[in-house]
Amino acid sequence: MSLNREILEIARKARETSRILANLPTAAKNGALKRMADALLQAAPLLKKANSRDVASARKGGLAAALIDRLTLTDQVIQGMAASLREIAALPDPVGEITRMWKRPNGLQVGRMRIPLGVIGIIYESRPNVTSDAAGLCLKAGNAVILRGGSEAIQSNRAIAETLQNALEGHGIPREAVQVISTTSRKAVEALLQMEEDVDVIIPRGGEELIRFVVSRSKIPVIKHYKGVCHVFVDSSADLDMAQAICFNAKVQRPGVCNAMETLLVHRDIAPRFLPGMAEKLIGVGVELRGCPETRRILPLVKPARKEDWTAEYLDLILSVKIVADLDEAIDHIVRYGSSHTEAIVTRDYESSQRFLREVPSSTVLVNASTRFSDGFELGLGAEIGISTTKLHSFGPMGVEDLTILKFIVSGSGQIRL
Amino acid sequence: MSLNREILEIARKARETSRILANLPTAAKNGALKRMADALLQAAPLLKKANSRDVASARKGGLAAALIDRLTLTDQVIQGMAASLREIAALPDPVGEITRMWKRPNGLQVGRMRIPLGVIGIIYESRPNVTSDAAGLCLKAGNAVILRGGSEAIQSNRAIAETLQNALEGHGIPREAVQVISTTSRKAVEALLQMEEDVDVIIPRGGEELIRFVVSRSKIPVIKHYKGVCHVFVDSSADLDMAQAICFNAKVQRPGVCNAMETLLVHRDIAPRFLPGMAEKLIGVGVELRGCPETRRILPLVKPARKEDWTAEYLDLILSVKIVADLDEAIDHIVRYGSSHTEAIVTRDYESSQRFLREVPSSTVLVNASTRFSDGFELGLGAEIGISTTKLHSFGPMGVEDLTILKFIVSGSGQIRL
Repeated sequence: MSLNREILEIARKARETSRILANLPTAAKNGALKRMADALLQAAPLLKKANSRDVASARKGGLAAALIDRLTLTDQVIQGMAASLREIAALPDPVGEITRMWKRPNGLQVGRMRIPLGVIGIIYESRPNVTSDAAGLCLKAGNAVILRGGSEAIQSNRAIAETLQNALEGHGIPREAVQVISTTSRKAVEALLQMEEDVDVIIPRGGEELIRFVVSRSKIPVIKHYKGVCHVFVDSSADLDMAQAICFNAKVQRPGVCNAMETLLVHRDIAPRFLPGMAEKLIGVGVELRGCPETRRILPLVKPARKEDWTAEYLDLILSVKIVADLDEAIDHIVRYGSSHTEAIVTRDYESSQRFLREVPSSTVLVNASTRFSDGFELGLGAEIGISTTKLHSFGPMGVEDLTILKFIVSGSGQIRL
Repeated sequence: MSLNREILEIARKARETSRILANLPTAAKNGALKRMADALLQAAPLLKKANSRDVASARKGGLAAALIDRLTLTDQVIQGMAASLREIAALPDPVGEITRMWKRPNGLQVGRMRIPLGVIGIIYESRPNVTSDAAGLCLKAGNAVILRGGSEAIQSNRAIAETLQNALEGHGIPREAVQVISTTSRKAVEALLQMEEDVDVIIPRGGEELIRFVVSRSKIPVIKHYKGVCHVFVDSSADLDMAQAICFNAKVQRPGVCNAMETLLVHRDIAPRFLPGMAEKLIGVGVELRGCPETRRILPLVKPARKEDWTAEYLDLILSVKIVADLDEAIDHIVRYGSSHTEAIVTRDYESSQRFLREVPSSTVLVNASTRFSDGFELGLGAEIGISTTKLHSFGPMGVEDLTILKFIVSGSGQIRL
């Protein structure tokens, strides 16, 4: 069977199965999710064995230590995967929810009801736990999912998927609800991206290169973000202790993720009081600062920031720092150089806080809190399938609800149009 | 200036202006909309003069009478355009609406706030009134719009846009809020579809060929529907008089539009009682019926339906008719052959009505009402920018609200992530 034919069969089976999944009762979905969690725990020795083959090949292939760390399935990781499936089971079922209902002058009752998106394709890199998280979220929202993980995790992903499929089947749900493309060739991804009849959405998760590749080839709508160039703006009225704690957390707590701060904006009026202490604390844990000319007048030892620094996603212990005249200049900078991902203000001024919330056109906007809270779990969505910076359908962290869409429902009593 | 350069300048100006529009107070937008309505009425003689040049070229070029009819601006059409702008002014402003707000265990308050999409490109065919409707809807939702109408309406569209731009400017809003691409070459459309940095959404309005062209070339997400193959299912428990009135209305009241019925599904148990009277009424006004074998046993003079008939959007006085065994077969037929646009059931049975509303995965699903109500104005959205059958962002008729997206807003008190 040719590769295209194979992918087409997977897509068609997903489409067929999606109709069954769309109409499953909530209890059936939750029961299956709990069974999937149990099955992962029981299969732990098997999963670790499959994973050890991936890890061995990765070592032989000279994969970086950080990536091998992400790839490795420990008991703790497997327990986390099971816990996540149980959490998804505990979330409310978005399918069938009627969010609004209104009445027309002719007596028609019109409403909006959530239904699943249908078939979702997920293209991701090394972490095998994405396999079970994505499977769980898609099932809860009534969608069939087609998973295409990285070649370095192929044995692990196959073993996890098979465990989940057996659990589904044991619960009376077709195993085609969760399918894995096990061909590691990039041609398989290209083939999937052409299946616009049978796949409704593509969600790529990984580096910017992977995402740009998917966007350039896909005939199917893609939910994505290229990068997270997140800002914290310390306003003139900020509580400076709070500002220091938030900025430190946003930069240092986990610098390699998309919601870490990459640029610090400081109001001119408090820069001389705020920056020296902040810089000392950051430099003390190894952060490299790159400043605008005005910053460097206060902190002469700091390297100059170049133009590329304002759009850089360092994903590392590096921070660009800019002094701004006021809130307007801060927002202008964010709009001009940012990535529509996540921005925070630290302020005690009511008007500044409200203007920042209203006027910053990014997917998550925070007042007096760390950018690190821009995450499905932290915002209360229960889990996360991805983060979107495209203002279509979803914008920001996406949970179960964002895997559904509203249709119109109308209850009449014989109305015809005149 | 090269064509690409010209389109890029338009797109960049739209992006700049969109930031101003996003933060306009409601009163400023509503005032401008009313001023635009006044301006259209005052400019009526000028608009009709420009339009008469388009109509003359169209006649010379041998355009079909129906298309010339759509193209023609009468006083009545201009009054309709003005009335529509006033209606849009009267709608609630979706921008800044906070739809939900919840509290996290750590005290963070998280909410979802509507913001504009940004810059919207609309590519449409002959009706010049789309120019003012689209301009009004986009302005109300805080978006800048780039309009690219058909070459046959170019003089009319330019005159309407200039009238609207002058009104905007007189109200202190940049005229770049509404821009028209006045180059009639298709290359201009192709150039626009590459401007992913500066244009957020493309909405094509017109025939299937235009839409497929746009989708195949666009790097920008496209909100669209290819066609409307709408069904009415007459259940065994239907009130047959109501069913006859709804089916007649859905097929005949305006057969050339996307929400007209194209296929009638009839429950086997009532087919012998329902079909003869229904057929007589439809044939009496010139409707051609094409039936399944079982339909033809009841109505022997009816032509046989071929396989292509089940997926056909006739946009004409033609109707395919199929007898089905039950609700399940009706839904299966709709899912298999339909276009996810609009479907109706006529029934007196509670369970059938609820199952149809829940299980039919189309953008508008009606009980005991005509498919012709699937329209932004009729559903109470005030006006309509288009209808989407793609389950991303929007699904079904789209009004002002569907030109916005929800971002997350978070109000904290110094929370950092542990």
